[in-house]
Amino acid sequence: MSPPLARLHQQLPQLLLRTDDNSLRHYGLDWTRYYQPAPLAIAQPATVAEVQGIVRWAREHQVALVPSGGRTGLSGGAVAANGELVVSFERMNRIGAFDRVARTIQCEPGVVTAALQQYASGKGLYYPVDFAASGSSQLGGNIATNAGGIKVIRYGMTREWVAGLTVVTGSGELLELNRGLAKNNTGYDFRHLFVGSEGTLGFVVGATMKLTLPPPPQAVLLLALPALADVMRVFEVFREGVALSAFEFFSDQALGHVLAHGQLAAPFEVRAPFYVLLELDDPAHSGDEAALQLFERCLEQGWVLDGVLSQSAQQAQQLWRYREGISESITPYTPYKNDIAVTISRVPAFIASLDALLAANYPDFEVIWYGHIGDGNLHINVLKPPALALEAFRAACEQVNEQVFALVRDFGGSMSAEHGVGLLKRDYLAVSRSAQEIAMMQGIKKVFDPDGIMNPGKLLP
Amino acid sequence: MSPPLARLHQQLPQLLLRTDDNSLRHYGLDWTRYYQPAPLAIAQPATVAEVQGIVRWAREHQVALVPSGGRTGLSGGAVAANGELVVSFERMNRIGAFDRVARTIQCEPGVVTAALQQYASGKGLYYPVDFAASGSSQLGGNIATNAGGIKVIRYGMTREWVAGLTVVTGSGELLELNRGLAKNNTGYDFRHLFVGSEGTLGFVVGATMKLTLPPPPQAVLLLALPALADVMRVFEVFREGVALSAFEFFSDQALGHVLAHGQLAAPFEVRAPFYVLLELDDPAHSGDEAALQLFERCLEQGWVLDGVLSQSAQQAQQLWRYREGISESITPYTPYKNDIAVTISRVPAFIASLDALLAANYPDFEVIWYGHIGDGNLHINVLKPPALALEAFRAACEQVNEQVFALVRDFGGSMSAEHGVGLLKRDYLAVSRSAQEIAMMQGIKKVFDPDGIMNPGKLLP
Repeated sequence: MSPPLARLHQQLPQLLLRTDDNSLRHYGLDWTRYYQPAPLAIAQPATVAEVQGIVRWAREHQVALVPSGGRTGLSGGAVAANGELVVSFERMNRIGAFDRVARTIQCEPGVVTAALQQYASGKGLYYPVDFAASGSSQLGGNIATNAGGIKVIRYGMTREWVAGLTVVTGSGELLELNRGLAKNNTGYDFRHLFVGSEGTLGFVVGATMKLTLPPPPQAVLLLALPALADVMRVFEVFREGVALSAFEFFSDQALGHVLAHGQLAAPFEVRAPFYVLLELDDPAHSGDEAALQLFERCLEQGWVLDGVLSQSAQQAQQLWRYREGISESITPYTPYKNDIAVTISRVPAFIASLDALLAANYPDFEVIWYGHIGDGNLHINVLKPPALALEAFRAACEQVNEQVFALVRDFGGSMSAEHGVGLLKRDYLAVSRSAQEIAMMQGIKKVFDPDGIMNPGKLLP
Repeated sequence: MSPPLARLHQQLPQLLLRTDDNSLRHYGLDWTRYYQPAPLAIAQPATVAEVQGIVRWAREHQVALVPSGGRTGLSGGAVAANGELVVSFERMNRIGAFDRVARTIQCEPGVVTAALQQYASGKGLYYPVDFAASGSSQLGGNIATNAGGIKVIRYGMTREWVAGLTVVTGSGELLELNRGLAKNNTGYDFRHLFVGSEGTLGFVVGATMKLTLPPPPQAVLLLALPALADVMRVFEVFREGVALSAFEFFSDQALGHVLAHGQLAAPFEVRAPFYVLLELDDPAHSGDEAALQLFERCLEQGWVLDGVLSQSAQQAQQLWRYREGISESITPYTPYKNDIAVTISRVPAFIASLDALLAANYPDFEVIWYGHIGDGNLHINVLKPPALALEAFRAACEQVNEQVFALVRDFGGSMSAEHGVGLLKRDYLAVSRSAQEIAMMQGIKKVFDPDGIMNPGKLLP
């Protein structure tokens, strides 16, 4: 045990510390596969007081701290590759006081997203933030990265569901932010500053989350489309005519990987270049008729080739698997992920330019398109050819990145819509934020983290 | 003209400057009546470049700047009482690019709230932030104070409707915050830091506002209640049974002032101690029946004495006047306003304690209760007896404040739910924010406003 670590053990004898190789590897990485984990050790605090003790120790010994939740991040925000102490919150995973009148629930940061969803459901309520990793992602990480997912079009990002936050700052202060109040105009809203700050200002050690009433029964409609340009046309038709809770799109290549990976049958007899999956309110199956009429209209216009509408909750779930299976099915190909967004009205022109750019620049790579088109958010995954070395592949992708991001900048878009910045996108921050903004971000980090011990090297250049 | 002002005129010859006494009085105050206006002059920029020029000049000459919108604030945030230059945005009042697909609209800061509402309506859309002052309040001020109002229970505060902000910081930098994107996880969200910052970090010079679909037709139900404690009981019954867009309450004293002030007839034959006004979705008058059933249930329980349900849009508007007329009707009494909030589940216990406290401490003053009870937000207005001098009245109120705020602190509440802090509540900030938070707020102010020229003395002690 290194001298600083021995000192930590001495100061906090109850604190669980792991230094075995398995733990260092396991807790040193998120889902990003471009880094070698090399943490000093893993700390697993059980109380807020232990978290504060860790921060005080880190300031004293100038040791960097990396927060660790479910480590399902895709930008390296939870990677510890430089001798940092990883602070894992998985032991702080209690769901606390439920307030039925205010419709809020107090959670520790290690609560798994799906556990919160289930808890809410047991109370006749609903926690609407949902995504493929919800079975292992943790609430503290969701808040630190302002997680999005498949219901953003109706329910917004994680930010919208945070009524109060308890944080330990990089200076070791314990702050109670907003206290779960619906209305509180008493100065700068630090709660919103911490949401999406990726652990660079402090640790989330508690959260009061909002819940809502469950939606009416949902139907799922899967449509086959002849061209990328039709995706937005179909979106506009359905958005006007039914109450959408999701509007996702994916390419035939994406579907191909899902079919090859799992036990699903093809949804249509003939393959189409693109697909969209819509989820919509369907109280007492009354939405069916409206949805079918809109489907007919799109069919007449030639914007849609075929479609299938779920006839049961079970079939709705099955249709979702075509979309939700994509990310896992391409993981073996070490995808280089781009997660970009533009204002939704600019999506058609942006997609046309991007399609041309990628076709010209990645002639030898397979490019998988999917995303939350209702939010203007595209996930572009470039797959590594098996024969190519990881570093060479990454270098090739980063070269194309320059052009992709130039396009994003031209369209006033975001270079990271929901994955955050972390390590992987840190050097591209200037695509979406001006030099002045970045300088001010650094100034703000100093206010909360004067010694620069909180997740250093992430987010900010 | 003072030498610094002459220099400003020389640097920006096109800039409209007013120094006449009427203008100094008019632009030097908001709706708060406790201060003597004494600005240096009034600047009325027409362009962002002029705003930047003013800030550069202010830094050079160390002149304090006070932003000025509709000046309908209730906490003195727009008061200029110490030789400041008032920067009025009323000439920057254009409504710009409308984006039908993204459902956003670009606005200059001087756009009047009602003008934005009307513009949205003309496009078949809806801007839901609404309050008594919406005919004169301006968007820049709404954003700087995170304005709330009567629809918060369904639509949230102004914060929820800001998709992008253009600001000029106290260092003179022009920042484009979030660019109107639905998803953008690229570091600290400065947009949310500026919302509610009361002009202490910089000026809002442009905003991309979200719009939404209009609600279905609304019905209004006015109920007479026997006791303050029944307000929350009635709220819980109706919130479960109908789709509420407003839930307001007021005391019989409040109603008395409205009736004395205007041409309205009393809503019920017999007076009751308290009233609640509900607005609810009523598509094709189908909500009526549900609402009437809930009314019957409350009547049986003895929680309600009488009620009237609007039979037309016109009658709905008339019922609203009982609630909306309160603020204006008591203005002649120079009310001392408290705008406090607690978590909604704690409202009954809080109201009981507060009622006892006010009855004991204000035996000689008339106390008017009303508020947005669905958000946990109470407006407590203490009226000045005509014979009492303003300063003596204020001193008496501030003495009681100490006890009111001690109660707010005990209940984990907010000492300013929607009016903001400004000058009037500045010295009470510690009721709702810890000493560490206040120190960090001061640190953040320094990042954006290194010379302390932006609305100094407001918000922060």
